[in-house]
Amino acid sequence: MSDTRLNDLIESLRCLPGIGRKSAQRIAYHLLQRNRDGARNLSRSLLDAMDNIGHCERCRTFSEEPVCHLCQSNKRDRSLLCVVESPADVYAVEEAGYKGLYFVLMGRLSPLDGIGPEDLGLSKLGSLLDEGEIEEVILATNSTVEGEATAHFISEMVRKRSMKVTRIAHGVPMGGELEYVDSRTLSEALSGRREV
Amino acid sequence: MSDTRLNDLIESLRCLPGIGRKSAQRIAYHLLQRNRDGARNLSRSLLDAMDNIGHCERCRTFSEEPVCHLCQSNKRDRSLLCVVESPADVYAVEEAGYKGLYFVLMGRLSPLDGIGPEDLGLSKLGSLLDEGEIEEVILATNSTVEGEATAHFISEMVRKRSMKVTRIAHGVPMGGELEYVDSRTLSEALSGRREV
Repeated sequence: MSDTRLNDLIESLRCLPGIGRKSAQRIAYHLLQRNRDGARNLSRSLLDAMDNIGHCERCRTFSEEPVCHLCQSNKRDRSLLCVVESPADVYAVEEAGYKGLYFVLMGRLSPLDGIGPEDLGLSKLGSLLDEGEIEEVILATNSTVEGEATAHFISEMVRKRSMKVTRIAHGVPMGGELEYVDSRTLSEALSGRREV
Repeated sequence: MSDTRLNDLIESLRCLPGIGRKSAQRIAYHLLQRNRDGARNLSRSLLDAMDNIGHCERCRTFSEEPVCHLCQSNKRDRSLLCVVESPADVYAVEEAGYKGLYFVLMGRLSPLDGIGPEDLGLSKLGSLLDEGEIEEVILATNSTVEGEATAHFISEMVRKRSMKVTRIAHGVPMGGELEYVDSRTLSEALSGRREV
């Protein structure tokens, strides 16, 4: 096919995660045929977001301002700092009703991929801890091997400063049925049992 | 979350077919974190495509020129006209080595959705047939109920002009195993059997 612009569009759509050649083609045809206004709107939003969204100087999450609205807010409990891997996790923890501050690693320790402490902004985390306002660090990295290693590394950093450090609980999900829960999770749930 | 631009981007991404709120969020974070250049490039290609790709005056497929390169080409067999539902089908038929011209319906007859003959440009198809160059019309609409109804409607149009009209063969796919082929397809394959 010699339609350069159509081919350009199809190739460009492949920057979207999980979209291969065939899906990109389907999306391009769909937009051209049924939603040109939506596509124009997407074009504007993409450019606007890429050019104007940076990282918060304090917590490293995505932010349009130098300091994000959560770090600026005076309604948050500034003695609590929740460490998460990504901005999507901030969203999830917010939904759960958490009212403290965050530190977003934008990744996890992964020596094989060349991701070390500096890539996660851990020296910045160190300075935040040294400011003296924070009393407890809550580790909410994912419970994958790399997430656990990252949590361990940070817990050492916090302990060196004789501050309180906690890890979110692992166990049976609410509404979950025991027989469908994997054995590692159930073992965590048993060892983390609490008196009622 | 009060980040307007991020929310705008997430909402805008939902114009993509099959992308809900959660996927849109995942895509937005992915682009911001790992592929800002790809996203800027996509923004450019989207706008460029939406503003510059129209429909071919003859065959109705997507085209940057008033008449598409297939209709303009002097290397095609202008006595053959293959009728398909969408530009994606043109791509598929091209891959199969077809060398004639196309007519792209940009849909199929669907009275329930209010899609009638005029929406499929059938009066334009009529004028093309009346030009006298075409000798055979090949119906390559999908073998769905609506596709078959559309093929039937067009076959009547062509027959009124005493021209040859054919339908692509249905049967067992190449490399397909009989035991996995559905009975309707197998029945088509039996009734369409050819002497060897």
